[in-house]
Amino acid sequence: MTTVAEDRLTAAFAALADPTRRAIVSRLARGDASVTELAAPFAMSLPGISKHLKVLERSGLISRRRDAQFRPCHLEAGVLDGALDWITTNRRLWDERFDKLDTLLADLQRAPAASAKGRRRG
Amino acid sequence: MTTVAEDRLTAAFAALADPTRRAIVSRLARGDASVTELAAPFAMSLPGISKHLKVLERSGLISRRRDAQFRPCHLEAGVLDGALDWITTNRRLWDERFDKLDTLLADLQRAPAASAKGRRRG
Repeated sequence: MTTVAEDRLTAAFAALADPTRRAIVSRLARGDASVTELAAPFAMSLPGISKHLKVLERSGLISRRRDAQFRPCHLEAGVLDGALDWITTNRRLWDERFDKLDTLLADLQRAPAASAKGRRRG
Repeated sequence: MTTVAEDRLTAAFAALADPTRRAIVSRLARGDASVTELAAPFAMSLPGISKHLKVLERSGLISRRRDAQFRPCHLEAGVLDGALDWITTNRRLWDERFDKLDTLLADLQRAPAASAKGRRRG
């Protein structure tokens, strides 16, 4: 993996390592929202929310339109996919370990039967 | 979500927000390994690796046998599943947004045809 991809992944996981930022991502998964709308469910000042939004923006997980006066926050699902791919790949490696073990055990169970047959024939 | 579950998720994402720790998780997904084996691919001291292992251990992503003299590190795939579930759920919410939009557009496209038919019949 390139360093750029690694850095993106590090930033995405770091951004998700906070319950308020995860709640913001969950809200934006349902649709774009303004900072005021995002702040509403939290007992947090607007500057407090803005700080979290900056972390999310730097990680690439969210974007904000620069031109419009009402600048809604928008989820960038591609960055979420990067994190999802990484976990899925490693989860699969883990499962394959057990699949290989199952195959090995099945082979070992078949082996004595096969050699017994061989002995009967010989 | 309970606070305990939120704290677990925060710790898991924070643990994954580092390239060395992700490489350690990827190595352990292939099978248990000792600290020396885990340190081998990195230009890093054993205390440096131990620091990362402590973060992974605190997050619950890895465990180490207390009793054995050779204490291999072991991936706890359940914690990885927690992170995977969270991302998958939010990714699905995002997709459903577009599914709903597609349904709405299809309904709008069907509507004029249906009313035109109605006019022809009447």
